[in-house]
Amino acid sequence: MSASARFDVLAIGNAIVDVIARASDEVIESEGLLKGGMRLIDADEADRLYGLMGPAIEMSGGSAANTLAGMAALGRKTAFIGQVAQDQLGEVFTHDLRALGVSYETPALSEGAPTARCLILVTPDGQRTMNTFLGASHLLDQAMIKEEWIADAAILYLEGYLWDPPLSRAAMRRAIDVSRSAGRKVAFTLSDAFIIDRHGDDLRGLIREGLFDILFANEVEICALAGSDDFDAAVASVAGQVPLLVVTRGEKGAIAVVNGTEDISVVAEAIDDVVDTTGAGDLFAAGFLSGQAEGRSIADCLKMGAICAREIIAQVGPRAQCDLKAEVAAKLA
Amino acid sequence: MSASARFDVLAIGNAIVDVIARASDEVIESEGLLKGGMRLIDADEADRLYGLMGPAIEMSGGSAANTLAGMAALGRKTAFIGQVAQDQLGEVFTHDLRALGVSYETPALSEGAPTARCLILVTPDGQRTMNTFLGASHLLDQAMIKEEWIADAAILYLEGYLWDPPLSRAAMRRAIDVSRSAGRKVAFTLSDAFIIDRHGDDLRGLIREGLFDILFANEVEICALAGSDDFDAAVASVAGQVPLLVVTRGEKGAIAVVNGTEDISVVAEAIDDVVDTTGAGDLFAAGFLSGQAEGRSIADCLKMGAICAREIIAQVGPRAQCDLKAEVAAKLA
Repeated sequence: MSASARFDVLAIGNAIVDVIARASDEVIESEGLLKGGMRLIDADEADRLYGLMGPAIEMSGGSAANTLAGMAALGRKTAFIGQVAQDQLGEVFTHDLRALGVSYETPALSEGAPTARCLILVTPDGQRTMNTFLGASHLLDQAMIKEEWIADAAILYLEGYLWDPPLSRAAMRRAIDVSRSAGRKVAFTLSDAFIIDRHGDDLRGLIREGLFDILFANEVEICALAGSDDFDAAVASVAGQVPLLVVTRGEKGAIAVVNGTEDISVVAEAIDDVVDTTGAGDLFAAGFLSGQAEGRSIADCLKMGAICAREIIAQVGPRAQCDLKAEVAAKLA
Repeated sequence: MSASARFDVLAIGNAIVDVIARASDEVIESEGLLKGGMRLIDADEADRLYGLMGPAIEMSGGSAANTLAGMAALGRKTAFIGQVAQDQLGEVFTHDLRALGVSYETPALSEGAPTARCLILVTPDGQRTMNTFLGASHLLDQAMIKEEWIADAAILYLEGYLWDPPLSRAAMRRAIDVSRSAGRKVAFTLSDAFIIDRHGDDLRGLIREGLFDILFANEVEICALAGSDDFDAAVASVAGQVPLLVVTRGEKGAIAVVNGTEDISVVAEAIDDVVDTTGAGDLFAAGFLSGQAEGRSIADCLKMGAICAREIIAQVGPRAQCDLKAEVAAKLA
């Protein structure tokens, strides 16, 4: 990790405001939703589903943006590139990132689509089921990629969700080149199995080319990427192709494999009451990457990830309302 | 209370989305804000203050709207009249009320001002300091007053905050006439001492005329209305002029005076940790008015108010995220 980088992490991801409401299991079933999953919806479906939802709260979201929010709360230097529109939700998203000290200057679009929304149904078991209207977010154009920022970030962190829209995929592809040319590291999070369903061959190709220094996945995603139902086999097959593979396993904790050989694992932090799992993976990445930026051991990075994930599961929404830095300091000691 | 009314309560009030952020006592001081108070701000000041605030969450608010949201959660039939604009925050406000079953059909304004926002700073002691940009909310025109709804509501509930803007004051004045002509009751909440500073003589005149059947106030407001620093003297002087006077006293509970003579009081519900006092008075009114609609004793109405106030103080924001009906049922038994 270069000590001279302006940013510890620059992330490119969806710029989304979450709309979070409690929902019954019956609603998930009658709507035919996959509990715990994410699906993309259009504006009409967003209006229809919103009309069925109970009273909600709004909170900034977006996977990589949540990760940066967590890192900023932990004192790290971060920057974000993502597309909002010139509307009230765009102002909310922009404010909440900047208020944390995240550098964010992507100009808001004046036309084309409104700012992205994610309608999140939280069932009594604390599971979140996400319905995302991407709006302006998927219109991220290559022209918005601030190359001087990317070249000055120790790690470029890419959100897999944004690999789907063609415009933003091209923008991220360009960002990878800029980062690598500057001698920086590239981290990628697979985000969701549907990304692998649709872009698996492409992503496997990039991994074989050695373009990713750090790969984040959960159990479902790593199995989909490896084309194997066997978790250990899936990890073994991917781990040889990336210098650092990090796989989250929900209540079973997480593992990291360094250079395809050295396995390190951490158990999940104990939690009495799962309030809302929204952002758990994002905040795990925040803790892990903050540990990396601080030059800590992989074991400590995993532990920091687990602590941050635990804190976000104990509250509603993906942006920490507690003093994350104090929690990590207390529990890491 | 007429059994034949379509609505238990129809309220006229501000249509506001709250923007809630944690803040230090130092910020309250350096900004010269009155902790626990409410001030009106213009669009420029809203932009400036928002820029200083930490990351926030957005939740529908508005004093009388919060009261109706609480009543709807308790199973009462309610309706709201209030002005939003055709924008995303207006959609949020509208959705959240309707999702609870509150009848709300005031057409959104297509121009003039955006939907109202209240920037709320919550200090570590749980006190909320409110900065309200009224936007479209103060443009409520008499033409928006649905007279057939008002005539069909057992109680017309008026939010004192809306007595300040001339347009909405005229609309509420008309609503009082409609309600009384239909033989219904009129309830008024004083909302804030600044309303009495600016409209005290007007309001005292309406009270003397006997236009209010129920008057809600807190300690500061009742003293301002009576022009007395002595709480007991203030209550005694106002109580003779309204059939039912209800005064909330924060952690000391609340009192009600019936026909100027019969005093009944309730102590506040015990609470370990005051998270955020936003909406405490609004939810007290929700519990009290729900008790009235159910034909309960004044003592029970006060108790229901105290239970609802307690629940809202234990969470962030003024709209209940718990099962309010179950809480009241459990604690009233």
